[in-house]
Amino acid sequence: MKSSAKARKAPPSSTCITSPVQDYLDKLQQRLQKMNSGTVATYIPELGKADPDWFGVCLVSADGQVYEAGNTQKTFTIQSISKPFTYGLALEDHGREQILKKVWVEPSGEAFNSISLDPATGRPLNPMINAGAIATTSLVRGKTAQQKIHRILDAFTRYTGRRLEVDDKVYGSESDTGHRNRAIAHMLRNFDIITEEPTTGLEAYFMQCSILVNCRDLGIMAATLANAGVNPVTGEVAAKREHVESMLSVMSSCGMYDAAGEWVYNVGMPAKSGVAGGILAVLPGQLGIGVFSPRLDSHGNSVRGIEVCREISRSFDLHMFNTPPLRKSSIRRKVKANEVGSNRLRHKKEAEILQAFGGRIVKIEIQGELTFATAEVVVREAVDTAAEWDCLMLDFGHVQMADEAAAQLLTDLAARMAPADKKLVLTAVDHLSDLKQSMQKKFKQLSPRRVRIFQDADLAMEWCENELIESRIKRLHSNHRVSLKDCELLTGFLQEQLEVIFKLLVSKNFRKGSRIIRTGERADKFYFLMKGKVSVWVPIGKKAKKRLATFLPGMAFGEMAVLENSTRSADIKADSDIECYVFPVKKLQELAKEHPLIMIRLLNNISLVMAGRLRKANREISILCR
Amino acid sequence: MKSSAKARKAPPSSTCITSPVQDYLDKLQQRLQKMNSGTVATYIPELGKADPDWFGVCLVSADGQVYEAGNTQKTFTIQSISKPFTYGLALEDHGREQILKKVWVEPSGEAFNSISLDPATGRPLNPMINAGAIATTSLVRGKTAQQKIHRILDAFTRYTGRRLEVDDKVYGSESDTGHRNRAIAHMLRNFDIITEEPTTGLEAYFMQCSILVNCRDLGIMAATLANAGVNPVTGEVAAKREHVESMLSVMSSCGMYDAAGEWVYNVGMPAKSGVAGGILAVLPGQLGIGVFSPRLDSHGNSVRGIEVCREISRSFDLHMFNTPPLRKSSIRRKVKANEVGSNRLRHKKEAEILQAFGGRIVKIEIQGELTFATAEVVVREAVDTAAEWDCLMLDFGHVQMADEAAAQLLTDLAARMAPADKKLVLTAVDHLSDLKQSMQKKFKQLSPRRVRIFQDADLAMEWCENELIESRIKRLHSNHRVSLKDCELLTGFLQEQLEVIFKLLVSKNFRKGSRIIRTGERADKFYFLMKGKVSVWVPIGKKAKKRLATFLPGMAFGEMAVLENSTRSADIKADSDIECYVFPVKKLQELAKEHPLIMIRLLNNISLVMAGRLRKANREISILCR
Repeated sequence: MKSSAKARKAPPSSTCITSPVQDYLDKLQQRLQKMNSGTVATYIPELGKADPDWFGVCLVSADGQVYEAGNTQKTFTIQSISKPFTYGLALEDHGREQILKKVWVEPSGEAFNSISLDPATGRPLNPMINAGAIATTSLVRGKTAQQKIHRILDAFTRYTGRRLEVDDKVYGSESDTGHRNRAIAHMLRNFDIITEEPTTGLEAYFMQCSILVNCRDLGIMAATLANAGVNPVTGEVAAKREHVESMLSVMSSCGMYDAAGEWVYNVGMPAKSGVAGGILAVLPGQLGIGVFSPRLDSHGNSVRGIEVCREISRSFDLHMFNTPPLRKSSIRRKVKANEVGSNRLRHKKEAEILQAFGGRIVKIEIQGELTFATAEVVVREAVDTAAEWDCLMLDFGHVQMADEAAAQLLTDLAARMAPADKKLVLTAVDHLSDLKQSMQKKFKQLSPRRVRIFQDADLAMEWCENELIESRIKRLHSNHRVSLKDCELLTGFLQEQLEVIFKLLVSKNFRKGSRIIRTGERADKFYFLMKGKVSVWVPIGKKAKKRLATFLPGMAFGEMAVLENSTRSADIKADSDIECYVFPVKKLQELAKEHPLIMIRLLNNISLVMAGRLRKANREISILCR
Repeated sequence: MKSSAKARKAPPSSTCITSPVQDYLDKLQQRLQKMNSGTVATYIPELGKADPDWFGVCLVSADGQVYEAGNTQKTFTIQSISKPFTYGLALEDHGREQILKKVWVEPSGEAFNSISLDPATGRPLNPMINAGAIATTSLVRGKTAQQKIHRILDAFTRYTGRRLEVDDKVYGSESDTGHRNRAIAHMLRNFDIITEEPTTGLEAYFMQCSILVNCRDLGIMAATLANAGVNPVTGEVAAKREHVESMLSVMSSCGMYDAAGEWVYNVGMPAKSGVAGGILAVLPGQLGIGVFSPRLDSHGNSVRGIEVCREISRSFDLHMFNTPPLRKSSIRRKVKANEVGSNRLRHKKEAEILQAFGGRIVKIEIQGELTFATAEVVVREAVDTAAEWDCLMLDFGHVQMADEAAAQLLTDLAARMAPADKKLVLTAVDHLSDLKQSMQKKFKQLSPRRVRIFQDADLAMEWCENELIESRIKRLHSNHRVSLKDCELLTGFLQEQLEVIFKLLVSKNFRKGSRIIRTGERADKFYFLMKGKVSVWVPIGKKAKKRLATFLPGMAFGEMAVLENSTRSADIKADSDIECYVFPVKKLQELAKEHPLIMIRLLNNISLVMAGRLRKANREISILCR
């Protein structure tokens, strides 16, 4: 979840290049700095002290890249921008249903300070007007104003990642002069929307409006909403996804008061402004914008702030309804087992089966964020092609998130496997808790041979291949003991030539788990595997290791380093108890001298085996590069 | 653009599996069929004839998958659902600016038939109320009502993909009884919002409301809006992307009349309903929903229709603000030239250079739909890592679309290459017209050696590699003539052994373009390349071909089929005039008999060369599988 995110710095040297986005923002800030219309709010003296030239712009991507220009560190009071965030906290405290009973969500079509209570119930029309916001703050848990504001500060700090505090002077002025808001609070008490002493919530509301933020804070708060509630700079969860949805909804329909429709139409980003000159806009899933400039228009919105949002939206077509269609982007790649197989090497017969029937094992690599619409694409692909496969592998290695709806759809798909006589294999699902839980819950009713979970995609593919092979030839060669004449390097020899070779070999057995070849050792022998399996493993990261290849009875291993006269480049371990024959390099030299024609055939066989593997590898590369 | 899309059919055989989405929809339809509240509209007799039990549900993905349940083929009149679509046509006819002068976009907070004109200008508050819709239809080009309705029918037909027509009986009734709408039209004429004879637009409006559609049509119309204006079933462009943005904006803020805020909050899909019982909802970028059920609530909305939208939204968390964050999903893969190189084989010295410095060539494979936010991720990656690379390849092979904002950002990035002494190579951009044009326009001012466009990613990688190698050793080996003793298969021989081999070889030259090896031929010789280049090409599709490998002077080719005693599996052609030596298979057999030790060394060398290539291939596979 954590995202590395720092503000951009000047490029460290001349070999580096500057960001076009940063350059755009710098120029925008410089150009709009010249807008001199609008005046600083003066209804309380503290606000009147603001310098009308202050102007900062901050754009933060949903994954935490911060671009800033101008006075982005200057603090000011958050004012009405606090409203959606406190609303989020109230939702966390009471849930959507309870909150809707107290504060409705319909636009008033009126100015921010309109009272707009339902005439019958006294319920404020929405949480963005003062009446709704005072009711919301009153609903935040806490017996005193201090307790409420502490919880609010803690919550807001999760959005900014920087410890926030209240400007006491502004709070004092707000409290002293807020007669209209006092009237509203008592009206709310009258209707039992507020059930406690109304000044408790009211004072907390005054304090909440006096919290000091800077322009960068607003950008990161906006990006946190864009990132479904996770602060993309700190990785901290500031709000639940479902509450972010509600916060953005009220910002969208009621955030810009009497201009909500026009704002949605022309800017297309849920937004909220404050009378100290701040403004915050969110493009869900994509980015957040924070602006600070204290010059206000007649509606009480920052003149430059509004213009920054309009320009950025227009310059880059950033509108919540300019949504690129998802299409099939959740399917990263689809391959069949006869195109890209597991790293287990195969005997000729098994390889033939895989070549002929491997198309019945289909692997779909999924990517991105799985929700209903993206998971539907995967499920549809599975359903539509079901006649073509017996075993379906779904690889979630490139999936960042799967929500409940996606988990449900995929689990429903899994439940259809057994009745249809098909198999489903999931790989790399450990990081997708909803999906894993949903599957595991359902599993108890499912045949374990029908739905399997593997961590490693290569081992999963091997399992699918084995199932296919076993269904065709009943048992796998790996359980067999082969004889020397069945070894792939020893094909085409006359019996008397084989006798010559056999005399040079030394029988040797290893217990399961023993290391047969060790990285760095001199390669002075190679092996014919008679029984059991051995694998080449390389470490990837601290704990994980990746299988490069598994060898089976009848195959040779370790021969290349011998021909190259080099040292071993990887470990080879026994996957089971194994039996093999060792061919020492000295005996090989003896063979070359005394029986050159045998040596020629042996080398020819080595070349052929390798050529086959190279061809397969090149075919796989061209498929993987598609 | 075209998308294969058919309605689901019953699975053809027992080996197939059913779609969980289809099953969900069937069950939902069956369950909600039991809702019996609400009554059929009766304000005109034709509507009163509807059977209250009719009920169809249709869900269509943004890529054109149609799921339907119930009476989805039953036709009914479109009524107010026509309003956003006619608004789109008016935008196409006059542009956003002109239309906004005539009809504003602010919610009225009132019922659909409220007059809601601006008291001063007479401008209707928005195009979803009758006053705004009558003004909008009047603005559609056409001198007569017939001309207007023909254009409207043509436009709507692009959304449905099925020829639509007006129900004349309903139209007659609407026209006969529409006194309130007549009053509105004359009021609009009074304010000069309508400048022609007001009944022209009014009659077209009555006809437009009487267009017959079915539930499936509504689903596909909704999906067309979800798919940015392209009908995903037919592939036809029904509206421009920018107008879809505006249509969805007015549906979102004004579509559900006095319940717009609550609808955004709880359902979160721009929607529109009609008094005949239709309802249409859009989840932008994801899917569209069409419902038909003539039982209406007191607001004139379909009772079951509203409930279907609520349930689908809730069941699958489908809310326009439940947006999965984009994160880094636009970067498919990042590889360096020392990890996965071009298909051009390399001499030892060149290979060493690529191994040592290939990390300075970085290839980023991009995917998905490129807009500002997704392109920013790519540009940021380039900027942040600029110190690490000299040459950056951007591969657009998996990009479906790049909008103007993305094109601009990427072009701005390209403009930074020359000053920073870096190179940018773009591949597979032919299908991205905005990007290609933007780059080509800028190119005239750019050094062509700094920014290049290739169609084929493999050839692009080779160009980058060559640039790197030339910067290190001044000239490439491919321009050289080598001598036999420099051939990689002939290393380690004594001079007298080489003499033996040389005598078996036949010199042969080929002109550029000639086919040296032909698929299917018997492999009776192999080649040592002395000068020039040859490549293995395989056809992919009708016109395109893909390079499997390029061989350089000093390398051998065609040897494997000889050792295997098989036929040729691909064509090999001369990329330039070439000189080579031919080793006939008969001479090879002679060598094995008469000089077995020479043969042994030759085979050993073949094995080693192949082992090197296999190792490289396996390394590339493990990187490509990441």
